[in-house]
Amino acid sequence: MAGIFITVEGPDGAGKTSVLRELLPLLESTIKMNVVATREPGGSRIAEEIRELILNPQNTEMDIRTEALLYAAARRQHLIERINPALAKDALVICDRFVDSSLAYQGAARGIGISEVAAINHFATDGVTPDLTLYLDVEASVGIERINRNKETRQFDRLDQEKLEFHEAVRAAYLTLVAENPARITLIDASGTIEEVVAACLDQIKRVFPTKF
Amino acid sequence: MAGIFITVEGPDGAGKTSVLRELLPLLESTIKMNVVATREPGGSRIAEEIRELILNPQNTEMDIRTEALLYAAARRQHLIERINPALAKDALVICDRFVDSSLAYQGAARGIGISEVAAINHFATDGVTPDLTLYLDVEASVGIERINRNKETRQFDRLDQEKLEFHEAVRAAYLTLVAENPARITLIDASGTIEEVVAACLDQIKRVFPTKF
Repeated sequence: MAGIFITVEGPDGAGKTSVLRELLPLLESTIKMNVVATREPGGSRIAEEIRELILNPQNTEMDIRTEALLYAAARRQHLIERINPALAKDALVICDRFVDSSLAYQGAARGIGISEVAAINHFATDGVTPDLTLYLDVEASVGIERINRNKETRQFDRLDQEKLEFHEAVRAAYLTLVAENPARITLIDASGTIEEVVAACLDQIKRVFPTKF
Repeated sequence: MAGIFITVEGPDGAGKTSVLRELLPLLESTIKMNVVATREPGGSRIAEEIRELILNPQNTEMDIRTEALLYAAARRQHLIERINPALAKDALVICDRFVDSSLAYQGAARGIGISEVAAINHFATDGVTPDLTLYLDVEASVGIERINRNKETRQFDRLDQEKLEFHEAVRAAYLTLVAENPARITLIDASGTIEEVVAACLDQIKRVFPTKF
């Protein structure tokens, strides 16, 4: 395929959503390609229905492996309906979370095992791998603080302690993925201002695909 | 686990449902174990919802790999909610279709590849394998004829020709699985009368688990 596939990853509170909101118009105005921004389920009706099943708070008895298989199924359908067609039309596709999220959250932090979650996601993607992954890195405590910013109470409670440990496990997994995939994944320091993070992301995209600007 | 896990497999028209209907009371009256008969989704609310998604005729755009992942997800949930708890209580669990069905139908006949479908099902079952699998074998033409028995028209049409080829691919896959798993899978000739097939199944269960009768 002639398109470019970029994914953006990071723990909760890394600022992915805010960064993408600022990055996209800058990218669209400078790159000589159509830009398609997406995230799962990305408007696929089937992927949407699968996600509703995962997120339904009634489904407390859902097994963690069932959940991982459902995420992989939704990912497959989003890939087939949205990402692959856009790549076939030579677009730059920038996707908020992809396989690495399942590896970090379900494989590592939830304890299924990274290689096992990688296997079902390999089945789901059938070899489609991002050309570039921007990993937005923040310390766990900074991430938690950002998540809590809009809450009424700012006290650090027991749930926050659990969140902190979980967040640290997610971050540790991401750092392992960065170390194991240096050619694909770039670590972006996301502790600074949004403007700084957006600039770092844009610089990296320009550096990897210089002929496209 | 101290229970016994038996699966019953075969192409459509092999007579699984009729055979199980006759076999179960015979088994219950002769074996010194509780017998739990089940089939996916088997009363698991989550597995039921996943199957509704798969079978929804609106979902014409569903990719074959999405479907395979959803079957694996429903299987996982049914295993966790129904099969494993019954095995833990020393029951004999007899399940109408399990992993081999996905290998034959989706892996082989639909063309995804047996080893790839095996990988996601290995993730789903996490190593739980039937102690015994009864494969009910019929010629493709016999299977199609049995399926058509209740239809108004008995003429062999184009759709039947497609069915025949698909059925032959499914059967060929099952025969490969039998050849590769001789210790687990027993081929039962299902071309005879129901009474003959039921007797052959019961004989085989007695032969494999003689101390339980």
